[in-house]
Amino acid sequence: MMETTIVEKKKVRLKNPILIEGLPGIGLVGKIAADYLISELKAEKVAELYSPHFPHQVLMQKNGVMRMIKNKFYVVKGKKNDLLILVGDVQAVTSEAQYEVSGKILDYAQKKGVKMVITLGGYGTGKMPTAPKVFGIVTHKHMVEEYKKYGIVFGESKGSIIGAAGLLLGLGKIRNMSGICLMGETHGGFVDARSAQAILEILCKILDINVDVKKLDERARETEMFARKIEKEALSGKGMPPVETTKQDLSYIR
Amino acid sequence: MMETTIVEKKKVRLKNPILIEGLPGIGLVGKIAADYLISELKAEKVAELYSPHFPHQVLMQKNGVMRMIKNKFYVVKGKKNDLLILVGDVQAVTSEAQYEVSGKILDYAQKKGVKMVITLGGYGTGKMPTAPKVFGIVTHKHMVEEYKKYGIVFGESKGSIIGAAGLLLGLGKIRNMSGICLMGETHGGFVDARSAQAILEILCKILDINVDVKKLDERARETEMFARKIEKEALSGKGMPPVETTKQDLSYIR
Amino acid sequence: MMETTIVEKKKVRLKNPILIEGLPGIGLVGKIAADYLISELKAEKVAELYSPHFPHQVLMQKNGVMRMIKNKFYVVKGKKNDLLILVGDVQAVTSEAQYEVSGKILDYAQKKGVKMVITLGGYGTGKMPTAPKVFGIVTHKHMVEEYKKYGIVFGESKGSIIGAAGLLLGLGKIRNMSGICLMGETHGGFVDARSAQAILEILCKILDINVDVKKLDERARETEMFARKIEKEALSGKGMPPVETTKQDLSYIR
Amino acid sequence: MMETTIVEKKKVRLKNPILIEGLPGIGLVGKIAADYLISELKAEKVAELYSPHFPHQVLMQKNGVMRMIKNKFYVVKGKKNDLLILVGDVQAVTSEAQYEVSGKILDYAQKKGVKMVITLGGYGTGKMPTAPKVFGIVTHKHMVEEYKKYGIVFGESKGSIIGAAGLLLGLGKIRNMSGICLMGETHGGFVDARSAQAILEILCKILDINVDVKKLDERARETEMFARKIEKEALSGKGMPPVETTKQDLSYIR
Repeated sequence: MMETTIVEKKKVRLKNPILIEGLPGIGLVGKIAADYLISELKAEKVAELYSPHFPHQVLMQKNGVMRMIKNKFYVVKGKKNDLLILVGDVQAVTSEAQYEVSGKILDYAQKKGVKMVITLGGYGTGKMPTAPKVFGIVTHKHMVEEYKKYGIVFGESKGSIIGAAGLLLGLGKIRNMSGICLMGETHGGFVDARSAQAILEILCKILDINVDVKKLDERARETEMFARKIEKEALSGKGMPPVETTKQDLSYIR
Repeated sequence: MMETTIVEKKKVRLKNPILIEGLPGIGLVGKIAADYLISELKAEKVAELYSPHFPHQVLMQKNGVMRMIKNKFYVVKGKKNDLLILVGDVQAVTSEAQYEVSGKILDYAQKKGVKMVITLGGYGTGKMPTAPKVFGIVTHKHMVEEYKKYGIVFGESKGSIIGAAGLLLGLGKIRNMSGICLMGETHGGFVDARSAQAILEILCKILDINVDVKKLDERARETEMFARKIEKEALSGKGMPPVETTKQDLSYIR
Repeated sequence: MMETTIVEKKKVRLKNPILIEGLPGIGLVGKIAADYLISELKAEKVAELYSPHFPHQVLMQKNGVMRMIKNKFYVVKGKKNDLLILVGDVQAVTSEAQYEVSGKILDYAQKKGVKMVITLGGYGTGKMPTAPKVFGIVTHKHMVEEYKKYGIVFGESKGSIIGAAGLLLGLGKIRNMSGICLMGETHGGFVDARSAQAILEILCKILDINVDVKKLDERARETEMFARKIEKEALSGKGMPPVETTKQDLSYIR
Repeated sequence: MMETTIVEKKKVRLKNPILIEGLPGIGLVGKIAADYLISELKAEKVAELYSPHFPHQVLMQKNGVMRMIKNKFYVVKGKKNDLLILVGDVQAVTSEAQYEVSGKILDYAQKKGVKMVITLGGYGTGKMPTAPKVFGIVTHKHMVEEYKKYGIVFGESKGSIIGAAGLLLGLGKIRNMSGICLMGETHGGFVDARSAQAILEILCKILDINVDVKKLDERARETEMFARKIEKEALSGKGMPPVETTKQDLSYIR
């Protein structure tokens, strides 16, 4: 049986690297934040991950060239910490596949010296938040106090974290890594750039980096307008199912 | 592919150890009994089992710290026999996964010297028992007479024992272990602490230990009141679907 | 991952052995024939096959002792050929599992010197045959003429042979084994002892053995009476769905 | 677990070989084209591929002999390039299986010296094309210009290429192979020999070979007549669901 494979495009040596995960998930919150980070910090692609647990398809691009469905690792050099950012088209679907892919991701991260993992995601509430909170879940108790100062809310999120955002912490902990999951409060029924903005602001504080959030701001405003419209129509009694605000965001495969 | 893994937290040497299994199953009968045993005997956690066949989720705890979904081994030192008690959040779902996890459990048990396995579960009848019987199924014929004296009922249970409670006996027998499954008579449609109490009483006789069943008694009374209420309404002609008595018991993941 | 395992109970040396397969399938035709052969020839159990692809259950027997779900190999000593007879509770469900289990069966058969495989099954037509034909499918063309003389019908069966009855021939052929599948004509909607009798008679001719078909005759008569009853009611216009004639035959697990 | 296996029937040395894939897919377009190529060029079978991910069945042939479900490799000697043509009964169903089978195909192709892969398929539009276009997707950008001259249309096909036609390119690219997928425009709801003819004509130009398309022409005319009939009835307001034109084409197993 073919295994999940990471193809390194560029060998890099990393200084105190932190793994940041932003794969597709609830409201695409983590994906939007991580993709934005990569684009604003002009991060460099260093590796690609292919998996037999991803759909058995290749994507047709406008220029007539196909590409595989994959996850990708980007690197940004930092002052104290280099960043290894994981993004991609999909997450695996079954439990076994998720465990395998997360295991391979951690293998690679460990080889690069990663000891800290930050996973990004959305926390769906079924309601439109006015100012989205950022909920946190950590691997070790002492981290709660340490991260509260950034405005992260602890102890209010319940249930379970599904997929890579959870497993990378859980499996990482067994390998003696520390980790935190930042979850932007979101409706859950549509793509939420405003929530992505909220976790990005806190992430920048944690990493002590500056990111111009202008362009994301525009997209966040779209989300907000959409949210107000829904509220208004809810008050006026008109039913309207929550749908995605920006269709292009959904061009990933599940 | 990642495999089911047992992480030993504390190396212990065990004297004539007996493996006792109480994972979630019908009426949570086995789980309630085993969890209670651990708490009353102040058993010590010695190992954790993680599996890619468990849900690809991590649980958020109230204190802001995540934890993996897992099974756990506890140890109690005894006079004649030390006890190795297996409890946990879940059982695997598919056949292949159940065989793998049970195999790993037996690997570990064998390494610790286990030659006897006692599995705990519920036997669903669709009816409320007035005084729940404890049914037994053994791995070897000569054991029937040996265990009848404890009040265990043989030859009245039919069909098959699904999951770890059955496989640990079956796979154990191939490895030359002996085993018995104690099944508390139960409705099957709700959590049944009274049935758990019934198997616990017999288990204590078998193991020649004393356990204060006070607290379980309270929970058993809840079950009984609930049962009477259902009966009464059934007689009065009001339909009422059997539901769980104590919601907190269902806070496990399937 | 645990693999399908064959546990040898008794080491035997076999003389020009022929593997005969009679696992559960259409109308239980093959199973009835093989089980009957084992009982009449007083065949001896020599090995058991356990698989993680079988249901994750153990069976409760009336005497209070559990047993695993399994397949079993029996041996009968013959004049020219010893017989290695394969029977059991179930077949695996998925393609991958069927290929694995069939591969393990052939590994064991090859080790025992098997070069010829005879698989037994039913060929469902949706109609009650008056005198069930026995259809044949072989691995090599030259065998058609060779086996026609026993009254086996070639070239009238269409479609595909599902499960072990087919795969043992197909995978066996790749290993340079010869093989034939004997399929008793049957309705398909119920257990058919008469069809089993038909293939058994031909099998005995092929193997040059004598088997007293008395007891099977009784069960075959039951099938026939049931068939006539259905026909009669069909003529009289009363609808009646075909059901199993003898309930105890269905006490296997699928 | 048994793995996908390629059994080489004849060892051949190939000169600059090109792998051409025509397994069952949309409208059977690729399969018809590749089967026709094999028959017209009198290609020789050199290897067979068996997989536990194919259905657990064997096929009954009219002559009374069974055969396994499989894929097959044929060879045609050419002037500049030898052709290694892959055809077969089925494709695997799940993602994991498709990745495994495609990996094994590429292993074999690589061993034979293949550096170029051409996959054939249909591109379903839900409409009857008057003159089916041939869409192309390549592995490397520079190939677009190179292949435009054959009349292949680039940049008009969207979405993803499912199965072997896509994966052989994607996984091949990782192994430094080049590749192109030729997709014949087709309705998608029925077997389309006319679309197969369209890709075959372009394939012959690419490979610089002559193939007498007479017989395929007849089958293509059938498709066309069927298409006109549907159109006419659509205009006259009579509903008629698109069905297969030539039933024998559907005698493959999915």
